[in-house]
Amino acid sequence: MNKVYIGVSIDGYIADRNGGLKWLEQVPNPENESMGYEEFMSGIDALIMGRNTFETVLAFGVDWPYSKPVFVLSSTMQAVPTELNNCVFIVNGKLESIVDEIHSKGYRNLYIDGGRTIQSFLNEDLIDEITTSTIPILLGGGSPLFGDLTKHLEFKLASSTILLNQIVQSTYQRVR
Amino acid sequence: MNKVYIGVSIDGYIADRNGGLKWLEQVPNPENESMGYEEFMSGIDALIMGRNTFETVLAFGVDWPYSKPVFVLSSTMQAVPTELNNCVFIVNGKLESIVDEIHSKGYRNLYIDGGRTIQSFLNEDLIDEITTSTIPILLGGGSPLFGDLTKHLEFKLASSTILLNQIVQSTYQRVR
Repeated sequence: MNKVYIGVSIDGYIADRNGGLKWLEQVPNPENESMGYEEFMSGIDALIMGRNTFETVLAFGVDWPYSKPVFVLSSTMQAVPTELNNCVFIVNGKLESIVDEIHSKGYRNLYIDGGRTIQSFLNEDLIDEITTSTIPILLGGGSPLFGDLTKHLEFKLASSTILLNQIVQSTYQRVR
Repeated sequence: MNKVYIGVSIDGYIADRNGGLKWLEQVPNPENESMGYEEFMSGIDALIMGRNTFETVLAFGVDWPYSKPVFVLSSTMQAVPTELNNCVFIVNGKLESIVDEIHSKGYRNLYIDGGRTIQSFLNEDLIDEITTSTIPILLGGGSPLFGDLTKHLEFKLASSTILLNQIVQSTYQRVR
């Protein structure tokens, strides 16, 4: 199962025009609720993300946030910072082959992250589940979650709940 | 109050690449539920739509579906079909002036319809409420509901419900 779990504006952006993510935290969260993220992560065996997302995470400048292996899609990256040698792995090639190889290592449930990576996976119909958490804002531009597709992809709604009284979190599963 | 009430795909399109709307009816609706539409319409005094949407409605070839006055935004249309003379009115000029004029006729709650019209209104921050009914499909292209904006527009979630077990209908109100 390849899964997406991502925050998005009403108009479908995952970062604003300046790459900013501050709007993701505009809804007050005094109790610091994880909004399903921890539960989602507990069902995940590994992550696949693009180089951009990887570098964004590095730029946060905090401790490495993932306890699961992270596979970074890149045809140009040669190495990862030494301290991440055991948890971050560079992969490239055909997406389907990459997924097969990761599966063969025993990682079955994959968290697909980053706009362009998600779009590439959707383009090859390799996404099984999408959870969007919609923040009540129109950004009017930025990095879009979705891109062009060569065919319609039907999903079914698995669940939808309201978080923090303001965020609609919906999970869609691919109908094949 | 200027209100939007519209069906949209997960990826934010209101018509597919061929202008098709069939996907809007992909969720089985055996009891022919109006999904809040009748209630919404009962709170509306008049509609504003673009020429494209007006012509799409005409092309349905059924009886004129609106019991409220419809104002069609167009700088080129000269007249409407004679039988609609009493219910359809051509308007053009600055959006704010158009809205003021319609208000002055006693129509306070306006249903703003059609992608480009909605985008124009949002661009001038003239939308107070947006209700989206999200159909669980990725279209991957077509007519987008939202367009570029020069600034972020914050909303608050007023309600969100699941219709027909598959459609998430959320209402957002502008925070000013």
